[in-house]
Amino acid sequence: MIKVGIVGAAGYTGRELIRLLAGHPQVEIRLITSRTYAGKTLAEVFGVFRSFPEVGEFVFADRDVEKLVSQVDCLFVAAPAGTAMEYASICKQSGTVLIDLGTDFRFADAAIYEKTYGINHSCADLLSEARYGLPELWRSDIAGSRIIGNPGCYPTSALLALAPLAHSGLLKSPVNISSVSGISGAGSTPGPMYHYPDRTENVEAYKPVVHRHGPEIATQLAKLAQAAIDVIFVPHLVPMSRGIFTTVFAQTKVPLDTGELEALYLDFYRYEPFVEVLVGDILPQTKAVAGTNSCHLAVRGDYTTKTVVAMSVIDNLGKGAAGQAVQNMNIVYGWQENTGLSQIGLVV
Amino acid sequence: MIKVGIVGAAGYTGRELIRLLAGHPQVEIRLITSRTYAGKTLAEVFGVFRSFPEVGEFVFADRDVEKLVSQVDCLFVAAPAGTAMEYASICKQSGTVLIDLGTDFRFADAAIYEKTYGINHSCADLLSEARYGLPELWRSDIAGSRIIGNPGCYPTSALLALAPLAHSGLLKSPVNISSVSGISGAGSTPGPMYHYPDRTENVEAYKPVVHRHGPEIATQLAKLAQAAIDVIFVPHLVPMSRGIFTTVFAQTKVPLDTGELEALYLDFYRYEPFVEVLVGDILPQTKAVAGTNSCHLAVRGDYTTKTVVAMSVIDNLGKGAAGQAVQNMNIVYGWQENTGLSQIGLVV
Amino acid sequence: MIKVGIVGAAGYTGRELIRLLAGHPQVEIRLITSRTYAGKTLAEVFGVFRSFPEVGEFVFADRDVEKLVSQVDCLFVAAPAGTAMEYASICKQSGTVLIDLGTDFRFADAAIYEKTYGINHSCADLLSEARYGLPELWRSDIAGSRIIGNPGCYPTSALLALAPLAHSGLLKSPVNISSVSGISGAGSTPGPMYHYPDRTENVEAYKPVVHRHGPEIATQLAKLAQAAIDVIFVPHLVPMSRGIFTTVFAQTKVPLDTGELEALYLDFYRYEPFVEVLVGDILPQTKAVAGTNSCHLAVRGDYTTKTVVAMSVIDNLGKGAAGQAVQNMNIVYGWQENTGLSQIGLVV
Amino acid sequence: MIKVGIVGAAGYTGRELIRLLAGHPQVEIRLITSRTYAGKTLAEVFGVFRSFPEVGEFVFADRDVEKLVSQVDCLFVAAPAGTAMEYASICKQSGTVLIDLGTDFRFADAAIYEKTYGINHSCADLLSEARYGLPELWRSDIAGSRIIGNPGCYPTSALLALAPLAHSGLLKSPVNISSVSGISGAGSTPGPMYHYPDRTENVEAYKPVVHRHGPEIATQLAKLAQAAIDVIFVPHLVPMSRGIFTTVFAQTKVPLDTGELEALYLDFYRYEPFVEVLVGDILPQTKAVAGTNSCHLAVRGDYTTKTVVAMSVIDNLGKGAAGQAVQNMNIVYGWQENTGLSQIGLVV
Repeated sequence: MIKVGIVGAAGYTGRELIRLLAGHPQVEIRLITSRTYAGKTLAEVFGVFRSFPEVGEFVFADRDVEKLVSQVDCLFVAAPAGTAMEYASICKQSGTVLIDLGTDFRFADAAIYEKTYGINHSCADLLSEARYGLPELWRSDIAGSRIIGNPGCYPTSALLALAPLAHSGLLKSPVNISSVSGISGAGSTPGPMYHYPDRTENVEAYKPVVHRHGPEIATQLAKLAQAAIDVIFVPHLVPMSRGIFTTVFAQTKVPLDTGELEALYLDFYRYEPFVEVLVGDILPQTKAVAGTNSCHLAVRGDYTTKTVVAMSVIDNLGKGAAGQAVQNMNIVYGWQENTGLSQIGLVV
Repeated sequence: MIKVGIVGAAGYTGRELIRLLAGHPQVEIRLITSRTYAGKTLAEVFGVFRSFPEVGEFVFADRDVEKLVSQVDCLFVAAPAGTAMEYASICKQSGTVLIDLGTDFRFADAAIYEKTYGINHSCADLLSEARYGLPELWRSDIAGSRIIGNPGCYPTSALLALAPLAHSGLLKSPVNISSVSGISGAGSTPGPMYHYPDRTENVEAYKPVVHRHGPEIATQLAKLAQAAIDVIFVPHLVPMSRGIFTTVFAQTKVPLDTGELEALYLDFYRYEPFVEVLVGDILPQTKAVAGTNSCHLAVRGDYTTKTVVAMSVIDNLGKGAAGQAVQNMNIVYGWQENTGLSQIGLVV
Repeated sequence: MIKVGIVGAAGYTGRELIRLLAGHPQVEIRLITSRTYAGKTLAEVFGVFRSFPEVGEFVFADRDVEKLVSQVDCLFVAAPAGTAMEYASICKQSGTVLIDLGTDFRFADAAIYEKTYGINHSCADLLSEARYGLPELWRSDIAGSRIIGNPGCYPTSALLALAPLAHSGLLKSPVNISSVSGISGAGSTPGPMYHYPDRTENVEAYKPVVHRHGPEIATQLAKLAQAAIDVIFVPHLVPMSRGIFTTVFAQTKVPLDTGELEALYLDFYRYEPFVEVLVGDILPQTKAVAGTNSCHLAVRGDYTTKTVVAMSVIDNLGKGAAGQAVQNMNIVYGWQENTGLSQIGLVV
Repeated sequence: MIKVGIVGAAGYTGRELIRLLAGHPQVEIRLITSRTYAGKTLAEVFGVFRSFPEVGEFVFADRDVEKLVSQVDCLFVAAPAGTAMEYASICKQSGTVLIDLGTDFRFADAAIYEKTYGINHSCADLLSEARYGLPELWRSDIAGSRIIGNPGCYPTSALLALAPLAHSGLLKSPVNISSVSGISGAGSTPGPMYHYPDRTENVEAYKPVVHRHGPEIATQLAKLAQAAIDVIFVPHLVPMSRGIFTTVFAQTKVPLDTGELEALYLDFYRYEPFVEVLVGDILPQTKAVAGTNSCHLAVRGDYTTKTVVAMSVIDNLGKGAAGQAVQNMNIVYGWQENTGLSQIGLVV
């Protein structure tokens, strides 16, 4: 049993981490923080925890970096850009594993980070020790690291859809990516874009072409493809809470039909417990992965135009955030990868 | 470990049972049936099971009553009125526990059943051995029984809201009950009332005053109150998948203010792991119990008119069906009552 | 053609007023105000008006009471409690008709207003000139008035459901009212209770028994019944944007069956263009009145318990606010009552 | 005043046509047909028409081709592939204008039609007289025709997004199109894919690459571009009733930045009453066009990769079906193009 802490535990990602970690047999949740709710119990603030007193009685702590780090073996930071970097040096000193669900350790290159997020990186010296936590691509790197940059939700869905192509060397630049997301991806803070009456029965795009997850996807594709791949990324909000559906359009150097592509994808993911390549008439749907750490994929080839359409679904809070963070922890500690992640998702 | 089977496993309730029983440490799912999908695997039919091969590989069997019963220690029947009665005699002979999530064993009196459901009860002789499976009210009866009539979803929510009043002898007749339900309560078969475009952004009542759950509620209230209590019950459909919110209006023989009522309810449910009485400003919401076996309650008293408003929420597929069925099984077998039911629900 | 102005035009009710008044043949919209968006055009702020330049080019003015009133013949105030009272004296001096969609002129008795809303009424002397703008009940009063207190959304739905009983002298006190509302009823300002991910797939009650619309309903029922009628009112939020479904439980002095009640209701509303009494198997649904000024009603009688269940649906922004305000204006000016209100609602 | 008829009036598109035509000053609805509801009134079947007796009293007729055609000047066919062709010859003989909202007159080439829809075209000889009813592209052709093939909903949104590029000669082949649609686009017939509990909180793709609207888009693009343009089209279902959001990725022969593209689009659509090109930070959202005949567009250029992202929204039942059909009728008859189409859409 290791002791874990969660910084930013009152957000959606933080709460999903609590849900998952509470059922993880190797883990004891030692502390949770929230500046908004410091001093209150989890059950007081969120009704869903009321029926589960073993976690409902947790009291939110305020942030006190040194004190927090000293109490845990592994710290999850579920907070915006600029938060995890405050914890990294102290974690390193104390030997605490740091899993950042924010953005601070997703780029090896501080310059790209600073350009993308518009803030200075205060521990750029640690970036070389950090690993990008997408296990299906970089499992062995993750295993030996103490700082994990947990991927963004859109990048997770897009990279899993593109990795077999990129890795095979067949992928041409640029790739076109259209994603739709449930609103929980925008966090738990109310705002005009997330007000129920304006959101229901409504779809809109936001930050087309310039969303910050574009560079994150491009960086990883380049690593996989050993070549620069431009990414044109358009995210949209759709009226649901959880789930991402990503549709990728890419061109390949040689024409491939659907059967050949399915074979490529099935082979690439053949040992992966959390990736299902759907073949035949079955297509991904977000509800099939809600509440889980799974990704479902399907692929189609248009031989004439050498175009590949790859479609992926994840739960943005699961494989897109908290689930993947737990998967990364399992890898770092050498536990079976689906430990704490084997709950069946929503049946409806 | 006991062996269990599920008749009607392809419906929403059946699938929720699979989800819960797959995580139950005392149970091995031995068989699942579906006339529609006989011969197919669970994963082929329902995407959510695709990522969980240990259940996804289950093959739906067709119904063959004798053969089915002989293979299991405990049989769950998640099928319409008239189904479970086909299994009851054979279960009795073989000593198999029968937990009916349909309607056949909810009434001790065959005449009321036949009037309510319009079908003949083929094993009325076994009704005296059956118990109404609402543990918070009849736990000790359930413990000694081999045939359990699992309550309806609306009755569960209404009875938990009214039980402390009925049991105390303070409840006057009639009681007025307004419930709203998510659409999964109507089952997984498409129909004009459940067609997405007509259902979204829409609320309607159905079967006001004459819904079959009215007599079920009245029968149980009479047992609790030791007096006839008339029930005026109006169910409504609201645009969501899961959850029931029941609002009860009742008059009491003496005036009670909110504080007195809260004390009564807190005391009545003080040992119940699945019932939370909310006090202060906190009010029930369906999402706080989605995916769980919990019921959240709140109560208000209007002293002047001697009116009590009691509000309850459950997940119609959880405490209103599959969760409660598992709870009943746990009681019959003497296991801790929350075994297999301790998963935290949806955090969003 | 008269000139009209709308104070608080950027809220949902204000925007619905613009939509309706833009199509009204007797009206010219002269000014719209919004403190938030002063100086911007309607089309800049709200995309839906972009395709309709004749209204889209309206510029939001800031509030300047005297100047505003001087420009219009009829002023609609779509703003919270305490706003319309600032305009009333000046309107009286200038002969401007004031239609308040807020709460300031719903109570004839300033003391009840002040108790209910917790604010001092600054023009209590004008209350005797104001009329409660529910045309189906008080049409002739409205016709001769220059200050109209447009009813609340819940009271409109509840009073139309109860009026035939109250007016007939058959209604007993208390009445129990359960309403569910779409979220637009809470206005266009974001907040935690209205954040999409927490609201979708969720139902909750709020302010049970103590909601401010309770006294408004009771006041009007007393006028109709010529006797005090206590009201126990419980509102709920359901995941949709528009619509209210109100379910009323009442006891009558003599028993009435459904047929007798339908006859009573059909007779009471026989000349009403905006009230439809549904008979037979047809039941109200909110979507059938979305975007309209209509109210659909159905009624059921339980002879044994002398209980009546009356169910009504309205669009909270239509008959529950802007539509009714236009209907009131039509009455005040002697125009045909459905002028500007004859657009067919949503077909899906 | 002309006399119009609607074949297939009970479907969503048919009902939307009734809604629009009932408010059209040049039109008298003479007959509506429905095989399912023949003999019933509109108000009996659909609650929304109950409050509007002038249309609610229409009686659905059964189909009787010759009789129907003889009664009207203009016939709208809102029915599946293969229906309108039954009416075309008789319409031609009698001089009746035929506006087909189905698919029979969308392709000038019978062979492509037959390949796409898998049915024989029974009046291929009339295809040369039919015109594709997308007014922004082929207005003058439409004006002189008596048979209009009203475009599909997805093609309308995609073609409006691509037309300025295709017409300019800058568009390269292939183009990648990702569309999401509300469920009303699938019609009013219930089915497993449209069952509320399975559809809410769910997104899925269907018929990726092979959807029948792909060839329709490609055919029109080729006409505009005077060159073959391959189309890779992926439609998705999202949980809402109305609306299409289409995101197009295309490459251009020369690099264009966002400003240049906006200028091109603004110029192309400068006289169009139903197309709004949004510039600056404003982006399309489906709700802004719900209930209208408008299309909102935005465009972005990625100079480096010569990629254009064009985004469009329409109401699939409005500009995507019934609204556009009315617009086409207005053109055929020489009326102002927005006659009957000037209702402001939903404000929330």
